[in-house]
Amino acid sequence: MSVLVVGSVAFDSVETPFGKHRDLLGGSASYFSISASYFTKVRMVAVVGKDFPRKHIDLFKKYGIDTGGLQVVHGKTFRWEGRYEHDMNAAETIATHLNVFRTFSPDIPRRYRDTRNIFLANIDPDIQFDILKQVRSPRLVASDTMNFWIDNKKRELTRLLKSKKIDLFLLNDAEARQFSGEVNLLRAARYILSLGPKMVIIKKGEHGSLFFSRKTAFSVPGLPLETICDPTGAGDTFAGGVMGYLSRFKNIDDAKVKRAIIYGSIMASFNVGRFSLKGLLGLNKQLIDKRYKSFKELTRF
Amino acid sequence: MSVLVVGSVAFDSVETPFGKHRDLLGGSASYFSISASYFTKVRMVAVVGKDFPRKHIDLFKKYGIDTGGLQVVHGKTFRWEGRYEHDMNAAETIATHLNVFRTFSPDIPRRYRDTRNIFLANIDPDIQFDILKQVRSPRLVASDTMNFWIDNKKRELTRLLKSKKIDLFLLNDAEARQFSGEVNLLRAARYILSLGPKMVIIKKGEHGSLFFSRKTAFSVPGLPLETICDPTGAGDTFAGGVMGYLSRFKNIDDAKVKRAIIYGSIMASFNVGRFSLKGLLGLNKQLIDKRYKSFKELTRF
Repeated sequence: MSVLVVGSVAFDSVETPFGKHRDLLGGSASYFSISASYFTKVRMVAVVGKDFPRKHIDLFKKYGIDTGGLQVVHGKTFRWEGRYEHDMNAAETIATHLNVFRTFSPDIPRRYRDTRNIFLANIDPDIQFDILKQVRSPRLVASDTMNFWIDNKKRELTRLLKSKKIDLFLLNDAEARQFSGEVNLLRAARYILSLGPKMVIIKKGEHGSLFFSRKTAFSVPGLPLETICDPTGAGDTFAGGVMGYLSRFKNIDDAKVKRAIIYGSIMASFNVGRFSLKGLLGLNKQLIDKRYKSFKELTRF
Repeated sequence: MSVLVVGSVAFDSVETPFGKHRDLLGGSASYFSISASYFTKVRMVAVVGKDFPRKHIDLFKKYGIDTGGLQVVHGKTFRWEGRYEHDMNAAETIATHLNVFRTFSPDIPRRYRDTRNIFLANIDPDIQFDILKQVRSPRLVASDTMNFWIDNKKRELTRLLKSKKIDLFLLNDAEARQFSGEVNLLRAARYILSLGPKMVIIKKGEHGSLFFSRKTAFSVPGLPLETICDPTGAGDTFAGGVMGYLSRFKNIDDAKVKRAIIYGSIMASFNVGRFSLKGLLGLNKQLIDKRYKSFKELTRF
């Protein structure tokens, strides 16, 4: 089964203690798609401007990503500029130029509408809601969000979660605290599950992630890495691994979601080692399986 | 085999979002001893003043702790006053009154000197060094430290680690970063191992802990708990579980240390649920084993 992602494709300018790079390929849909492409067929819905170079579209195609839903419109591509200090857990946004993303109103291509697995990257919850009206009968819907939407569209985000259309909600620890009003992450997760989603994943950066369903609690650490070069896109890369892996199965249960979270963590661990999504390029089953074994060794007792 | 702890016994006054309590039984040796007592015989070396109530000594005895090394001297018992904000990861120290602890120069009782397992709680590294001259042939020596000693006695602490007498060094993530000058915890651990210790455990509060030896990396998450009432003593309680468990075995290997870390995490999870060391009282094998199973379920994939 394939997976459909709706999100951003962007140019990022990023400064970390390991360097400063301008006009990198970025955006939630880019990270998600390349990551998920190691597991399944990916359909991408996003928008870029006329300034978006052909080579990036070629890169997506090289990874088997269906870019039929990537609109190229008049104007400039979304640009984000950010900086990370030494702890790498939070980006400081220096500038955001939404450009063509400002009026992004995704029209899901007709041939995508029967996609069974959907990932709604962190875009306006009203748009997320609207997308779910366009798809026919998804089997698994996951959505992400960010502090901006919790600040400005909490009611709309809550409506989305209460719609019972979101199976899996992903957000980071700070967002979980902000959204739920609970400092304690277990309470925050319970609150989120009480709204409607069947499952929630709280991403904790270098500390790994937590997964909660009605029946299961699961915690996976971050893989201790000597160099975390650029954490940009780690959350979307993680989601790509999770959704990519799950898209391979007809039936999903908590055990499969746990393994999917390991694959998500593996992909994120590759991603943060290099700038932009360079860490995700040129991987293969052997490299991914080797890191799966590292996770086993790291956590087994 | 028994375990010898050298540390503090204190009165704590603690304020957390869950309440404010004065004159609680505290101190590193208290937490360590009660925790370790569930696994092995404990010998305690510490000092208190004449104001230290009989009931606390009776409590130690009730848990089978040998208090023959607990000196009662003229003066007042060590007092600490602190406060935790909502995130509970760092205490704000309001007041420290060392009192009789200021001149604490532990004289290890003759009958303790053949103890095979030693825990040097976070006291002056010069005193830690001196204690190791008094014990005959320990099998396993673990030591802890704190930011105060890294700030003020880094050279002495480094000498201790370079002495090759410390098998296992425990410290928290902030201390590991401060001591090593490395933001990255894997690099921090490598630096510490390069000095001499065979093993290092980096405690990360609610995020669990990391263990590194020459051959092994191990990461265990914190058990997601709905209520973290008072984190005071969690690190010493953790060490008590680790050292208590290991003291039961003739031979130690990385697999046993991993399991010991789970027991340490279990004891800490009980401890943080109530003020002072109340969460550690009245436990039994069934309750501990149940939580061991929870850790398995939480981490297995």
